[in-house]
Amino acid sequence: MSPLPTDLTPAERLLRTCRGEPVDRPPVWLMRQAGRYLPEYRQVREGTTFLEMCRDVERAVTVSLQPVDLVGTEAVIMFQDIFTPIPALGVDVDFRPGPVVAEPLRTLAQVEALKKIDARESVPFVFEIVKVLRAELASRHIPLLGFAGAPFTLAAYLVEGQGSKSFSTLKRMLHREPATLRALLARLTDLTVDYLNAQIEAGAQVVQLFDTWAGLLSAAEYREWVLPGHQEIAARVNRAEAPLILYVNDGAHVVAEMAAAGADVISLDWRCDLASAAKEHGSRVSLQGNFDPCGLHAPRDVIFEQVRALAEAAAPARGHVLNLGHGCLPDTPVEGVRAFTDAARALPKRS
Amino acid sequence: MSPLPTDLTPAERLLRTCRGEPVDRPPVWLMRQAGRYLPEYRQVREGTTFLEMCRDVERAVTVSLQPVDLVGTEAVIMFQDIFTPIPALGVDVDFRPGPVVAEPLRTLAQVEALKKIDARESVPFVFEIVKVLRAELASRHIPLLGFAGAPFTLAAYLVEGQGSKSFSTLKRMLHREPATLRALLARLTDLTVDYLNAQIEAGAQVVQLFDTWAGLLSAAEYREWVLPGHQEIAARVNRAEAPLILYVNDGAHVVAEMAAAGADVISLDWRCDLASAAKEHGSRVSLQGNFDPCGLHAPRDVIFEQVRALAEAAAPARGHVLNLGHGCLPDTPVEGVRAFTDAARALPKRS
Repeated sequence: MSPLPTDLTPAERLLRTCRGEPVDRPPVWLMRQAGRYLPEYRQVREGTTFLEMCRDVERAVTVSLQPVDLVGTEAVIMFQDIFTPIPALGVDVDFRPGPVVAEPLRTLAQVEALKKIDARESVPFVFEIVKVLRAELASRHIPLLGFAGAPFTLAAYLVEGQGSKSFSTLKRMLHREPATLRALLARLTDLTVDYLNAQIEAGAQVVQLFDTWAGLLSAAEYREWVLPGHQEIAARVNRAEAPLILYVNDGAHVVAEMAAAGADVISLDWRCDLASAAKEHGSRVSLQGNFDPCGLHAPRDVIFEQVRALAEAAAPARGHVLNLGHGCLPDTPVEGVRAFTDAARALPKRS
Repeated sequence: MSPLPTDLTPAERLLRTCRGEPVDRPPVWLMRQAGRYLPEYRQVREGTTFLEMCRDVERAVTVSLQPVDLVGTEAVIMFQDIFTPIPALGVDVDFRPGPVVAEPLRTLAQVEALKKIDARESVPFVFEIVKVLRAELASRHIPLLGFAGAPFTLAAYLVEGQGSKSFSTLKRMLHREPATLRALLARLTDLTVDYLNAQIEAGAQVVQLFDTWAGLLSAAEYREWVLPGHQEIAARVNRAEAPLILYVNDGAHVVAEMAAAGADVISLDWRCDLASAAKEHGSRVSLQGNFDPCGLHAPRDVIFEQVRALAEAAAPARGHVLNLGHGCLPDTPVEGVRAFTDAARALPKRS
């Protein structure tokens, strides 16, 4: 093993951690760190819709950067929605606040009628946001993350029409019209690869794939319907340029399948036992997670103690990115987020 | 091992399975088998509210019994809601359709002001329903299940005020006002024990504890906040008279903790690997589950095949009650439910 470098920049620390190279301590950032829990975010957001914010380069850049100074996060993720590339396919989408699809996709004809798009042309503002952010962050050596929704999660909204507890329309399609769902997933996989690679070209240094709804499937169905898409994305995304993080919500039962996707990092929610994941899969992939966002309500000393315990549990893995198990919530206390990032910096240095 | 009895009645088959005694094949019933997916249920329900239905002995009995002849289920669970015993505590509750609490419990004073009740007096209609059902079923030897919501799940609604994706108000209390939550759980544990024992006295032959929201906790938090309550209930409920089934939704990460509760049966959702659960915990507890309700949309032959696979996966356990991993949904196809119970009867007989 190469000797541990001293004085790592935040970008070096995150990139080395993703690739399983030695670092002094885990880097820290938080999913949905640019969000409504920050008064400064709400101020920028005022008088505009979520969709307008996503397309407004200046505002999107502003809110993306806010958490660095306000809560001490060590990476920036561009402000955007996983559904951003979807309307260009010819699908009418509204946000209230989750995506609501005017005409849900239920037939093969609808899937085949989806427009072929080049993300670079259909959502140019995304890559503009990435470029501006990368330039803004360069002097501070803060790394920039891009992201995309995973095909199964995008399909879930497109078929169901909106968020749902059971996504039974989607699952009915899986059982009764498997060819339609397969065709849709194939289209979305191509889109996702193209979209992530375009973000990497524009300057994203790490990319994260969000599979919010894949955890609704049994492990057997996950292996059939989700894992192949993840594997294709991991194979086709330019991971030499930007490591890939795979996040699956509610995926405690599919950690082995997540580890088999070919991503550099798997991002787990708080239901997963980090110690077992480190032991069983940590030589193959780095881990990200997995603090319960609601745990940020705890007193500062408890947060410090729990972050130490998390880092210890993950230590056998080749790398650990300290993060939440899900995104920050509107009622997340700002002081809890600060305690969380401070706790990362207070972790004992590895030597 | 005693020789396998021949010609088991449905009641004998279920009771023996719960207690880990040999049977010819798994018994079958479905959570929320009396529900909106049945046209005959919707007919009885017409012109009345959910709450009125719960209190109307005749209608509640009618819909409880419907699934026996309509879909071939081999057990009856009384029609009722997990929140039924709550209003008598002095809490104003509405159903839209989940429970909505007018003044959510947020302080220790509110918890201490909850009325002490005897379920036998406060919800006499429940025990009347149990008595009538038991009498109706006697000649057919169909077993009758009672049930209750588990303390953590009842507390979740009482504190949050209604259903929620993250239950962050509840979790904030867990972190910031633990004494208040502990006091509330203690009160609800007493209530649940009393309520289940009263159902057993009235004639329930098996009782199921529903913990819908405990799976929102990490395993460590579950061990602190949920497991002790389950253990106390298992110790104080008259299990000699009626075996106890413990259901935890989204609990793939706490199967070991479920098995440690002291229940006779643990009921798993479809995210759990039944084969692992059978291998690791099946000598100690029987298993129930765990077909994805959305899988009932599959063609009949696929349902048959998957039921065979489930039964095979669970076979190493001391007993297996074939059931869903969650309740029937409003869009569940009746023919899928029929296929499911037929598949149980078509399972190869053990000898």
